[in-house]
Amino acid sequence: MILFECDYAEGAHPRILERLIQTNDEQTVGYSEDPHCEHARQLIKKLCGNNNVDVHFLVGGTQTNTVVISSALRPHQGVLAVDFGHINVHETGAIEAKGHKVLTVPTKDGKITPQQIEAAYHDHWNDVNHEHIVQPAMVYISNPTELGTIYTRTELQNISETCRRLGLLLFVDGARLGYGLMAEGNDVSIADLATFCDAFYIGGTKCGALFGEAVVLCNDMLKRDFRYLIKQHGALLAKGRLLGIQFECLFEDDLYFRVSKHADQMAMQIREAFLQKGFSFYCDSYTNQQFPIVPNEAMEKLSKKYLFSLLAKIDESHTAIRFCTSWATRQENVSALINDINNL
Amino acid sequence: MILFECDYAEGAHPRILERLIQTNDEQTVGYSEDPHCEHARQLIKKLCGNNNVDVHFLVGGTQTNTVVISSALRPHQGVLAVDFGHINVHETGAIEAKGHKVLTVPTKDGKITPQQIEAAYHDHWNDVNHEHIVQPAMVYISNPTELGTIYTRTELQNISETCRRLGLLLFVDGARLGYGLMAEGNDVSIADLATFCDAFYIGGTKCGALFGEAVVLCNDMLKRDFRYLIKQHGALLAKGRLLGIQFECLFEDDLYFRVSKHADQMAMQIREAFLQKGFSFYCDSYTNQQFPIVPNEAMEKLSKKYLFSLLAKIDESHTAIRFCTSWATRQENVSALINDINNL
Amino acid sequence: MILFECDYAEGAHPRILERLIQTNDEQTVGYSEDPHCEHARQLIKKLCGNNNVDVHFLVGGTQTNTVVISSALRPHQGVLAVDFGHINVHETGAIEAKGHKVLTVPTKDGKITPQQIEAAYHDHWNDVNHEHIVQPAMVYISNPTELGTIYTRTELQNISETCRRLGLLLFVDGARLGYGLMAEGNDVSIADLATFCDAFYIGGTKCGALFGEAVVLCNDMLKRDFRYLIKQHGALLAKGRLLGIQFECLFEDDLYFRVSKHADQMAMQIREAFLQKGFSFYCDSYTNQQFPIVPNEAMEKLSKKYLFSLLAKIDESHTAIRFCTSWATRQENVSALINDINNL
Amino acid sequence: MILFECDYAEGAHPRILERLIQTNDEQTVGYSEDPHCEHARQLIKKLCGNNNVDVHFLVGGTQTNTVVISSALRPHQGVLAVDFGHINVHETGAIEAKGHKVLTVPTKDGKITPQQIEAAYHDHWNDVNHEHIVQPAMVYISNPTELGTIYTRTELQNISETCRRLGLLLFVDGARLGYGLMAEGNDVSIADLATFCDAFYIGGTKCGALFGEAVVLCNDMLKRDFRYLIKQHGALLAKGRLLGIQFECLFEDDLYFRVSKHADQMAMQIREAFLQKGFSFYCDSYTNQQFPIVPNEAMEKLSKKYLFSLLAKIDESHTAIRFCTSWATRQENVSALINDINNL
Repeated sequence: MILFECDYAEGAHPRILERLIQTNDEQTVGYSEDPHCEHARQLIKKLCGNNNVDVHFLVGGTQTNTVVISSALRPHQGVLAVDFGHINVHETGAIEAKGHKVLTVPTKDGKITPQQIEAAYHDHWNDVNHEHIVQPAMVYISNPTELGTIYTRTELQNISETCRRLGLLLFVDGARLGYGLMAEGNDVSIADLATFCDAFYIGGTKCGALFGEAVVLCNDMLKRDFRYLIKQHGALLAKGRLLGIQFECLFEDDLYFRVSKHADQMAMQIREAFLQKGFSFYCDSYTNQQFPIVPNEAMEKLSKKYLFSLLAKIDESHTAIRFCTSWATRQENVSALINDINNL
Repeated sequence: MILFECDYAEGAHPRILERLIQTNDEQTVGYSEDPHCEHARQLIKKLCGNNNVDVHFLVGGTQTNTVVISSALRPHQGVLAVDFGHINVHETGAIEAKGHKVLTVPTKDGKITPQQIEAAYHDHWNDVNHEHIVQPAMVYISNPTELGTIYTRTELQNISETCRRLGLLLFVDGARLGYGLMAEGNDVSIADLATFCDAFYIGGTKCGALFGEAVVLCNDMLKRDFRYLIKQHGALLAKGRLLGIQFECLFEDDLYFRVSKHADQMAMQIREAFLQKGFSFYCDSYTNQQFPIVPNEAMEKLSKKYLFSLLAKIDESHTAIRFCTSWATRQENVSALINDINNL
Repeated sequence: MILFECDYAEGAHPRILERLIQTNDEQTVGYSEDPHCEHARQLIKKLCGNNNVDVHFLVGGTQTNTVVISSALRPHQGVLAVDFGHINVHETGAIEAKGHKVLTVPTKDGKITPQQIEAAYHDHWNDVNHEHIVQPAMVYISNPTELGTIYTRTELQNISETCRRLGLLLFVDGARLGYGLMAEGNDVSIADLATFCDAFYIGGTKCGALFGEAVVLCNDMLKRDFRYLIKQHGALLAKGRLLGIQFECLFEDDLYFRVSKHADQMAMQIREAFLQKGFSFYCDSYTNQQFPIVPNEAMEKLSKKYLFSLLAKIDESHTAIRFCTSWATRQENVSALINDINNL
Repeated sequence: MILFECDYAEGAHPRILERLIQTNDEQTVGYSEDPHCEHARQLIKKLCGNNNVDVHFLVGGTQTNTVVISSALRPHQGVLAVDFGHINVHETGAIEAKGHKVLTVPTKDGKITPQQIEAAYHDHWNDVNHEHIVQPAMVYISNPTELGTIYTRTELQNISETCRRLGLLLFVDGARLGYGLMAEGNDVSIADLATFCDAFYIGGTKCGALFGEAVVLCNDMLKRDFRYLIKQHGALLAKGRLLGIQFECLFEDDLYFRVSKHADQMAMQIREAFLQKGFSFYCDSYTNQQFPIVPNEAMEKLSKKYLFSLLAKIDESHTAIRFCTSWATRQENVSALINDINNL
């Protein structure tokens, strides 16, 4: 069975493992206060073009979303997201478990619009009983989105301006950020995120690391006491240096970008194969997740040899399915898949 | 500077890193449903002498304590612990953050007694207004304790019987379990823990692994839906196999026990040196944490060359300090320390 | 200005105030352990036709929903409700503040169907990653609904059977229960609720009392330690007898039903007037809330003299508005309103 | 049986009930936005000598403590209190249920000292691992304390100055405030509280009202969105005017002070009787709670005729018990008690 089910099916980029071996005997203090973390923080700050950001390292995505969001909101405040948003559907209610409602708006392509944000804001404040309703205080977006799409720089800027005008915080989930940055047509940089967001994170788990997410806090109000929040959530890794070492590896040269580019290229081959075959897509994605809509028999046939996931039943005879590539995806597996698509 | 400050100053036992390299290219499903985790679970179940336990892998100790405790208690229930208990002092209120009060009793040696449990239970239920008071529902103990001491098999059995008679759950924090199991005078086994507790965990982070704690759920009532709780807490590692691989390494032969024994032996050398010098100890510990009470000038002198931590100010001129060894502690560093103790 | 904005614009039925004066000097113990509460509990148990229920008195609706729901669910579980559900929109996220997601299904008439419950259940359990998704564990319905509609006995029975078959709890918010029980066409009794639900409450605040909601716990699993939960939530009234006295008054004869019937009759007159005028309704309600769809100029005109609330903008020129009657609504005010409707 | 068990054994001052009858037919908007609440707010602001405070009305004490404290703290922050503090022992962990640890210091007389606050603050910030420990951010005191004692103006001022210097919030639980303000030797006024505290409340439930606590928010940072928090907690009374009417009655003339004075006088008679008999007291109280230490046989004898509560077992043969008076305590009952004390 060949896995295209997710982007965390393999270990880590070999250079990371080598580095872990090289540094294994070093004695360092714990909790990410070691020199490797410090170095990795400097590398990321440089990418942000902004020495005024704070960088913290956490272990996983759900954890990161929970710590950032619950650290920023007061008890009566909620976070606005698209209905497909990871925090709304696939984190077992982690945000609610910290007391906050996820306020949703519908989406077709995984993205939220400034108009939707504006409308949600005014719906709230125009309601004469707004004190009886959860107050929207933060906007959560994923880039790339859960549907593989990416925000353009202009879209991001417009969302950012809307949020700032309305007094809403903007938080970007970058669990798959590398794949977005390297996608065809992308014009967003890490420095842009540091400019437009109040907080965002650079995903390591899905982009070459064993695990790890680098949170960048841009808004001063979010910086205070953030390490307490990490610790309280059980997210302060004792051997924090493991995170520093990994992000050092990924960012001391362009490794993060190279491995992400590879995944996108693999995905584009798969995309092309489905297109050639005349299949349509649930969403127009140029990143490592592809969502072809396939006849159920085709799905059945492919499932004999490949592991992939289901997105949605389209009609009685068609299903939208997801193929994921990663930094580790091998050309031979993609070629096999393409061949099988051609033969459907 | 030589670090005796904690037991997580180095990476992992080399065999673990080798294994990560060997398995790196394997494709596996995520979230600890892979064959390595399954194998590690079998190894641990065997050690428990009990195929009826559930085994789950989490990343760190605070996380593990929080998930287990908050999964087991109803909102009005609290967990009983000694005042030195890790959950009471060093987890930034993680248990309270999930809604539960930590109910404390005083301790001199880090241990709780059946009498203290019994008294706390009756204090609660005999109060005519007990509905206005947090209900004790679980007992949390650490073995070894935060003061390096260990429970005997008889003590553990007595605590267990008290808990069962009173309808209280018993949970053992085994963040340093290896060092307890290998300590001089220990007569407790993992199988004993599986017999006496409702839940416990086997610490990996501090005993040879990069990170990871293996939770063993013995009481059927705690097993249901436990993975939901792990996920909600952001504690379900995407590449769960990393945990499986590490615990496979530690338990496929006696590696876990060997590395723990080494740390205890290093600690006994340090203990002996302080004793020889005529210093007393805050607590009589035979595990990897030693708490000598030293004159402040001696502390000052040692701190020039060694990193250690402070436990408590004893009087104007004496302080109890902590030296920690680990699976990675080198004889040369211990010998240097002993030499410097002798020369104080 | 005449208020039709809500059903809590006046004080209490005069008999309740008289009784408060008569009993004012009695000395009783606090926290609803007094003889008045005990008597009121007996009266309600009798109405339930079931001595095996527990009855507790709380102060308000949001409080009651929160205590019941959070007492019943484990941390990873959520409560299923229609999108219009009071807990979903008008309680400032009180359920989420206790850690639980409100899982919603769409509704046109305020009611949920067994099919929707069944679908939500299977959507969850059929998802291969269901551990990453909040688990539906309880169904919350309001009767009457937030749109004034009521469930028939058969509908309630079907929902109940569906819930029991699937292992879901059923909780009925009866903040306006009296108005439902007395509505034209209603065939549901309090005894039916006690048979079909795991928990429900009989609203006092909106049906003749100064304040107060009587919670009926039918499922044994929900009964244990419920008073702890009330206290923890700050919902255990010190002078609990105030609740007992009020529910005694309401249920020692048929006062609760008489005052509710009055409100329904007033509402039917208003309904008839709008119908006569040719206006349609957002929902077909026979209870004390009426939702006519009116041209914006008519709305404007009525708002000069009457206070009512807005439900929804229907199109550019029409709005659905809400008129509420209560046990205290006066015929003269209704007649004035009818006259003004006729003259629109 | 005569009740001296608590200060909420009777209904309300008769003037309050009369006023409820007089206003019963008025139509007002809900949720404390009516003219009675507005008037009561003005009266209280005037007493505060400060038009810059916000006044909110809640139903009970546990609720009020929970809403104020959880509204002010971030998730990693805790509240400092004496071990006897109501929030620490008698609210079923309501503060922890909102995620915050109650950090305690020992007390003999129910009071905290500036030195204790200072020490707790520095213990935290001097700890190299303070991010692993709950951060003290608020000081909670009760006045009168749970042991009946009161703070002098100077003590309050010193605590206030300490808090402000250290950046800690100061919150005063005034559930029994009237009895403190009217006590022999008191030199604190409501205006002083408004000057020295960040928030405090004026208890109604125990001082003449049916129920109700008036929260005064002095610090601007606590004012924002406070009504959302009240609503989310289920503490926003639908018929909010009931609170306004009661506090109008209590403060439109000096009723609140007169009824409180009465209770203190009754308590002084009881105090004198125990003193005359040669009994000592657990605490030197001049308010409505008296804690004589009595031989167990005397306790036994008194318990035949009077209901009182137990504070603490002093030794094998003595117990500290509590007698409570209230605005409603009758001279005849006090005289009977005195007679029985004399005859012990």
